[in-house]
Amino acid sequence: MEVEVRIKLKQGVADPEGENTKKALMLLGFSNVNSVRTVKTFIIDLNEEDGSKARAEVEEMCEKLLANPVIHEYEIR
Amino acid sequence: MEVEVRIKLKQGVADPEGENTKKALMLLGFSNVNSVRTVKTFIIDLNEEDGSKARAEVEEMCEKLLANPVIHEYEIR
Repeated sequence: MEVEVRIKLKQGVADPEGENTKKALMLLGFSNVNSVRTVKTFIIDLNEEDGSKARAEVEEMCEKLLANPVIHEYEIR
Repeated sequence: MEVEVRIKLKQGVADPEGENTKKALMLLGFSNVNSVRTVKTFIIDLNEEDGSKARAEVEEMCEKLLANPVIHEYEIR
């Protein structure tokens, strides 16, 4: 089954990619942009049909590799 | 209002970040990973309360800046 995990920056952590995207949009004439935030999404296809087992495994992947607990929070869908 | 746009690689386009993430997960012992795909998500906060106008504007942003039509497809939520 496929599990989607979203890796977001924690509140208060700078998002330079989002800020630069906003600047570029403003320069292109999109003047009503308040903010741009970026989220990294991984779609992981697992050999596991049990939804709760798959989620638990992806949670472990986040803890061990995908997310940095200092700056990221993650959400498994 | 906030508009979310997902920038995905078109089918058939290599996703080296996803492939390397899969390799790293396998090395960490997650042996039942079939594939990992990456998606870039932008959350854009606009000074525009009309949903269809906001979506149209974000679509223009994708065409002009956020997505590369050669390799990406995008989805506005």
